[in-house]
Amino acid sequence: MGWLAVVGLGPGDAAMQTPQAADVLAAATDLVGYATYLDRVPHRPGQARHGSDNRVELDRARHALDLAAAGARVAVVSSGDPGVFAMASAVFEAIEAGPDAWRSLDVRVVPGISAVFAVAAWLGAPLGSDFCAISLSDNLKPWPLVLRRLTAVAEAGFVVALYNAASQARPWQLGAALEALRPVLPPGTPVVFASAVSRPEEAVTVTTLADADPARADMRTLVLIGTAATRRIERPDGRLWLYAPRSHPAAS
Amino acid sequence: MGWLAVVGLGPGDAAMQTPQAADVLAAATDLVGYATYLDRVPHRPGQARHGSDNRVELDRARHALDLAAAGARVAVVSSGDPGVFAMASAVFEAIEAGPDAWRSLDVRVVPGISAVFAVAAWLGAPLGSDFCAISLSDNLKPWPLVLRRLTAVAEAGFVVALYNAASQARPWQLGAALEALRPVLPPGTPVVFASAVSRPEEAVTVTTLADADPARADMRTLVLIGTAATRRIERPDGRLWLYAPRSHPAAS
Repeated sequence: MGWLAVVGLGPGDAAMQTPQAADVLAAATDLVGYATYLDRVPHRPGQARHGSDNRVELDRARHALDLAAAGARVAVVSSGDPGVFAMASAVFEAIEAGPDAWRSLDVRVVPGISAVFAVAAWLGAPLGSDFCAISLSDNLKPWPLVLRRLTAVAEAGFVVALYNAASQARPWQLGAALEALRPVLPPGTPVVFASAVSRPEEAVTVTTLADADPARADMRTLVLIGTAATRRIERPDGRLWLYAPRSHPAAS
Repeated sequence: MGWLAVVGLGPGDAAMQTPQAADVLAAATDLVGYATYLDRVPHRPGQARHGSDNRVELDRARHALDLAAAGARVAVVSSGDPGVFAMASAVFEAIEAGPDAWRSLDVRVVPGISAVFAVAAWLGAPLGSDFCAISLSDNLKPWPLVLRRLTAVAEAGFVVALYNAASQARPWQLGAALEALRPVLPPGTPVVFASAVSRPEEAVTVTTLADADPARADMRTLVLIGTAATRRIERPDGRLWLYAPRSHPAAS
């Protein structure tokens, strides 16, 4: 009997991947995913690998469902958590539009640590109050909606994590997003550019909304935007911690 | 040399706790935390346990910092992720207000899988579009602000995860929150009450905004509120999946 698991690999360091994810990856006959993520999974004899580029998510999902329906044990791999701007939605979208038989398949989602939590832990506790995660990609939703959501949550005092902040095909969106936030948030609001946290090529830059340069971001960058309440603790070694106070001033 | 790590235990199942968290817990001389969470950590000879109730977070944080400053290796344990409505912010708040020496301490945050991601994986992929996490507690922020944030994000089309949805001391807030959402979201919007996902006493109820009964929630319940776009897939065995489509209709 085949199955399909959509597996979160976590941010990169194997020590941040759950044993549940490791067990599912070990039990699979077939691995499906973006080739860069597949490269993070240890090779096992007899296990087939179906790598692809990072687009055509729906085709990848259908291929994985076909394999499972034919009896394979299929792990669809995602970086971070598969339910956060990753493969899980594409799999269920394919199921809903696909043959009835797919609704009877054993399909599971195996959570992982999404990028924003690795970044937050690195920084301190910047998410400790209410927060949002927004994909800045306008491939699948209209850009005015992205901007409206972003300004709505910034005005309401949420910390915001921006996924899909930039790519070669979407070079101007992050700059436009930061511009839209400047009338809403104080210039000193912390802005963080974080890439590959927990991996050897990890890079984290803490700046402010006034100084944030959108050109710092590429397709691997998570951008975190604090609030007027975000606190900075300077440390004797020159590093700093960012955290969100648990208490909000009694203003409303 | 002492250290302090704020450690995320994940949602409950040991298979969903990272190896990094397990290693830090094994290396600690002292464990500090809410007694219910400490009970999830295996006992080790010679390791001291400092349990407390689930309030007085700042006292607990100061106690842990005192221990680390005196040379102990201290793990402060949190359920889920320590940076999401848990102990990490309290630790940094204590550091900022505490003696200068605390800023030189080796303090790390070890991320974990927060409740909402375990719940989302259980359901399918309901967070697959933009989402927010809000603490419904008005112990530390004014209630009108909670309501304003909640309605702002529901109007803007975010999926919303409500942490601290109810407790004996806060019995009416969830009902008021659902009332505030009824003019904003369609009556059929999915609402999920989820407790203890991945633990033996796991309980998940999927209902709608029209039918949601706030009395279902207690202090262990995460409440997830979908959007008008959330899809339900009925399965032949009577179960269902919920997912958020990746694409948004071109309206803005």
